[in-house]
Amino acid sequence: MIVKHQSPSYSMTMRLRYPDRPGQLGRITSAIGEVDGFIRAVDIVDVKQGLITRDVTVNARDVEHGERIVARMRSLGGVHVIRVSDRTFLLHLGGKIEIRSKAPIKTRDDLSMAYTPGVARVCRAIHDDPESADALTIRRNTVAVVTDGSAVLGLGNIGPKAALPVMEGKAALFKEFGGVNAFPICLDTQDPDKIVETCRLLAPSFGGINLEDISSPRCVDIEERLASLLDVPVFHDDQHGTAIVVLAALRNALKIVGKDLPSIRVTLSGAGAAGVAIARLLKSAGVERIVACDRQGAICAGRSPAMNRVKQWLAENTNAERVAGPLSRTIAGSDVFIGVSGPDVLTVDDLKAMAPDPVVFALANPDPEIDPDLAAPYAAILATGRSDYANQINNVLCFPGFFRGMLDVRARRVTEAMKIAAAEAIAGVIPDEKLLPDYIVPSVFDRHVGAAVARAVSKAAAESGVARRERKPAYRISS
Amino acid sequence: MIVKHQSPSYSMTMRLRYPDRPGQLGRITSAIGEVDGFIRAVDIVDVKQGLITRDVTVNARDVEHGERIVARMRSLGGVHVIRVSDRTFLLHLGGKIEIRSKAPIKTRDDLSMAYTPGVARVCRAIHDDPESADALTIRRNTVAVVTDGSAVLGLGNIGPKAALPVMEGKAALFKEFGGVNAFPICLDTQDPDKIVETCRLLAPSFGGINLEDISSPRCVDIEERLASLLDVPVFHDDQHGTAIVVLAALRNALKIVGKDLPSIRVTLSGAGAAGVAIARLLKSAGVERIVACDRQGAICAGRSPAMNRVKQWLAENTNAERVAGPLSRTIAGSDVFIGVSGPDVLTVDDLKAMAPDPVVFALANPDPEIDPDLAAPYAAILATGRSDYANQINNVLCFPGFFRGMLDVRARRVTEAMKIAAAEAIAGVIPDEKLLPDYIVPSVFDRHVGAAVARAVSKAAAESGVARRERKPAYRISS
Repeated sequence: MIVKHQSPSYSMTMRLRYPDRPGQLGRITSAIGEVDGFIRAVDIVDVKQGLITRDVTVNARDVEHGERIVARMRSLGGVHVIRVSDRTFLLHLGGKIEIRSKAPIKTRDDLSMAYTPGVARVCRAIHDDPESADALTIRRNTVAVVTDGSAVLGLGNIGPKAALPVMEGKAALFKEFGGVNAFPICLDTQDPDKIVETCRLLAPSFGGINLEDISSPRCVDIEERLASLLDVPVFHDDQHGTAIVVLAALRNALKIVGKDLPSIRVTLSGAGAAGVAIARLLKSAGVERIVACDRQGAICAGRSPAMNRVKQWLAENTNAERVAGPLSRTIAGSDVFIGVSGPDVLTVDDLKAMAPDPVVFALANPDPEIDPDLAAPYAAILATGRSDYANQINNVLCFPGFFRGMLDVRARRVTEAMKIAAAEAIAGVIPDEKLLPDYIVPSVFDRHVGAAVARAVSKAAAESGVARRERKPAYRISS
Repeated sequence: MIVKHQSPSYSMTMRLRYPDRPGQLGRITSAIGEVDGFIRAVDIVDVKQGLITRDVTVNARDVEHGERIVARMRSLGGVHVIRVSDRTFLLHLGGKIEIRSKAPIKTRDDLSMAYTPGVARVCRAIHDDPESADALTIRRNTVAVVTDGSAVLGLGNIGPKAALPVMEGKAALFKEFGGVNAFPICLDTQDPDKIVETCRLLAPSFGGINLEDISSPRCVDIEERLASLLDVPVFHDDQHGTAIVVLAALRNALKIVGKDLPSIRVTLSGAGAAGVAIARLLKSAGVERIVACDRQGAICAGRSPAMNRVKQWLAENTNAERVAGPLSRTIAGSDVFIGVSGPDVLTVDDLKAMAPDPVVFALANPDPEIDPDLAAPYAAILATGRSDYANQINNVLCFPGFFRGMLDVRARRVTEAMKIAAAEAIAGVIPDEKLLPDYIVPSVFDRHVGAAVARAVSKAAAESGVARRERKPAYRISS
């Protein structure tokens, strides 16, 4: 079992009032400790009439644990729980992003330039030369983060309104790590035709489209149709962002175990959008032997049950040896396991059956394909999607810099070469001599990553012939 | 003829290099003065090898005038024009608005709360109670500024990309004067059905829709359909923003001339969206006698040529006396002229035929229905849409505070009472004892306006039964 850690993602502040007598705070903190709460801060709010009011901020493991801590406080004689505020919910009040003017509008002059009458000249210039909108408007640096709420995080089909906090978070990360303005567009439809049409109609406001949390295999189709309709890049992060960071991590992992891409045998668990994108990108990067599995086992040419367009591609383009059967059979002799499926897919026996120095990426979130603590003794290198273990495979390493690089050169579309260049840039942020089994990808807070990815993507876009101008970064990535 | 004034909306900076000798700068500034340029600033860039480089910032009347000034510089012996930068275009580079995170994302804790895993709890809360999205996401304070680019400023049908700078400017004003986050949505269609459908699909991300620069009469239909489809307010600023500010100005103007709304006779020139919205709102506010004119003359019941849905409404709801004929006939005896049409519609003879103390709102932009300098001697009170005359009728006085007020109480829709309340609030910002013939509306920079409008709109929404919560302003309007 994965032990849940106390996490600031469930952090709460309890406002407590109690008689101002020696030893009272000790009683409170001991009681919190007894029920396993982790005290983050104790602040004084007020002292009067012999009563003291304090805010006690505590990390809990989850909602139930939080409730137990509050109940313990309520059971303490003489302690009054005035209210409990949840830091995560407080942070979300009113949304996580804001829109503001880049220049002040404090004087008549400001107004005359930013709005009428001055703005009319800029409109006319764009009317005469529509391409100039890419320089003179937010299109130069703004992307839409588009979802239909059909496959949000591990939560599933929760719909567009409930998906909005994720899209806002994504927008915040775009700015923080890529200097890119991103706006969340949550669509009240799950009809692929309507999603495609709406994105097409919205496109004049945006320099790129980032598709997000749209269920598979619809997302593959939607992305392809949009890419061919629009003259700005379309990127489905759950597919390609994941694939790029996996390739980056794999490159560094193989350096440590002394293997190379063409020689390895990869077992891939999960045949959704991320799975197929990983298989495609690994193939492009030189991996020759990949066997993809879903719940029915290995996917190979000729298999009939539970196929769809995505699985059909896998059947035709991977598993040349036509391995069949359950994952426990295909994994035997594999050098690499990559899981983008669900919990408890992989056993310790599976790991023991792998080739020497196995590389295990158990990326299902929040519960990986195998408990990382169980897997650790049997894997040469282990990576997960979780922030509380080493080697977190996190798309934040990719998408902000990827779009930064595309916007800098006004790329028309995304090419395979741009994805490989991005993976190499992420991997390259860690010099060879610093690579360790638990340091194969840089930290998401490593400020070199975004800039390195942006440079590599701009260059690859130019070499792919999809750049509309030379790179001349107009925006610095904040540091 | 209206004399064009030098305006910062056409301001340019010339970088000039010339031999560092006494009297040179004087030669340059005199030459600029000769061709009527207005020098705003002179800055030194560099002095070396006997050459001095200066940036000279000059306001011109328009593009042609700017070019003449540059040509004059080029003709000056010994002065090299290195480059000319246009301040308005520089301001627009990369767009005028940006999106950013409200909270920093600098640590793992920040990330865990704003994004995974913490965000999942917020998503689940909204999934369980969709109304909570109005508190926990950007919906609480974000509106879409939607256009199809079919009727932009005085420029006409320039399309969505060329309209984007105007929508960005609008978004900047929303934040500056109302504390409202607004995002420009420029649609690549002019089909009303598609516009309505796209707004419906986008609605999960927004707490309100501001329609903008959509041509008449389509805009009236689009607004009505959207208002009935969506549970957030829909407001077409060109109609109602204009009508509200006109009503505000009219209330104050009538105080000065000692007349009241029920007794006046109004001639309205222009039967587009703004015209009909003005007629509707004036009727709601108590004006009984309105005659609307288009290019064919007075609109009355039974008139057949050049009618459409909007004009049909005017025919049925105004001009009870069935006045017919050209504007020069209908204006005779009118107390008030309101023009939202085009230049040169009104003559001095028309003004002379009006009732005593005529109130003249010549709002066509940039060229009013009559040259204000010609009209001034014959009007008791004169207002225009221009910033270079007194009494500017500017929608900025209305829309930021109007949406602020609606968002504060989560209004479901816009009611007539809310519009009248907003007009009264704008008018009321100027105390009676300070009213003057050239001070009937507050300055757009008067920071009391937005807050006053917001309060009035919130209150009226509550009284109209369309408010979903009590007013508890979460955002202060910046000052």
